[in-house]
Amino acid sequence: MHHPVTNRNGDEIASAVTNLDLHDISRAACTYGVKRFYVVTPLADQRELAKKVAAHWTEGPGGSYNPDRRRAFSLLRVRESLDQVLAEVQKREGVRPRTAATDARPSPGAVTFGEFRQELAAGRPWVLILGTAWGLTRQAMARADCVLAPLTGPTGYNHLSVRSAAAIMLDRLLGG
Amino acid sequence: MHHPVTNRNGDEIASAVTNLDLHDISRAACTYGVKRFYVVTPLADQRELAKKVAAHWTEGPGGSYNPDRRRAFSLLRVRESLDQVLAEVQKREGVRPRTAATDARPSPGAVTFGEFRQELAAGRPWVLILGTAWGLTRQAMARADCVLAPLTGPTGYNHLSVRSAAAIMLDRLLGG
Repeated sequence: MHHPVTNRNGDEIASAVTNLDLHDISRAACTYGVKRFYVVTPLADQRELAKKVAAHWTEGPGGSYNPDRRRAFSLLRVRESLDQVLAEVQKREGVRPRTAATDARPSPGAVTFGEFRQELAAGRPWVLILGTAWGLTRQAMARADCVLAPLTGPTGYNHLSVRSAAAIMLDRLLGG
Repeated sequence: MHHPVTNRNGDEIASAVTNLDLHDISRAACTYGVKRFYVVTPLADQRELAKKVAAHWTEGPGGSYNPDRRRAFSLLRVRESLDQVLAEVQKREGVRPRTAATDARPSPGAVTFGEFRQELAAGRPWVLILGTAWGLTRQAMARADCVLAPLTGPTGYNHLSVRSAAAIMLDRLLGG
């Protein structure tokens, strides 16, 4: 999600798309059997940029140079809003998906990775939401059906990139 | 490691340094309590580039703009060879570190993440080696004290970026 997210001062912004987010998260999604990787931004020029990168690897010269990358990028869809994503998943799956927001800060009532892994194994569709920049706004977080516990290591530091966070979360939830 | 690694044809090369590798792996190392993150390349211009990026965030304007990034980059060291790294760790720790190589392909006798996590908990110094490009050469792999099992998800696809692989490995080995 590139919107609604916050900047370092807590203001609501739409963040820029980062090329390597598209590559890394597509590849992690493909590794862990995720059905779709949606990049969400209301900014038309940023959607065009993301689509252009994806097209290079799915239909353009990138795909013949690197078929593994084509397979990963085939999971990527670029959409304007979370509502659009949820409607699309509902149409495909025949049931409205539930949503899990992620946050680097601890939230009261957060669901653990172990609990959520079991929930996913039950097979009902879920949309896992990651915010870019300084994270999803409080309002966006409040709209989700649940919030996942933050990723933690043995230190107090938890400033992972969205690329690293996505990879670790998918491994915790779907890794074997 | 940017050398000795292979390209898509299996030839030994020295790969280029990628800016976001420095950011993402420094941040993951800091999150999971790794003592040092070494970037290894025999190419002097690539070492200069990596040092320039690190200096921007540790001593330059980046550090005052983003102290969290400074803390992460303070773990980064740029070295010419693995031997240099091992000598430096030995000097600091008072004992020669053991080395664990990583490989996206299955290796006979590979150590599982669970086994290696227990080994790390015993406290003896280890150097975890990740290759860029198409991975460490067979010779580099053979020099290591052990090889870690490949990361796997529920699919046959395992083409993660080195950034994602490093993050997942540190979470599996040191995450709590």
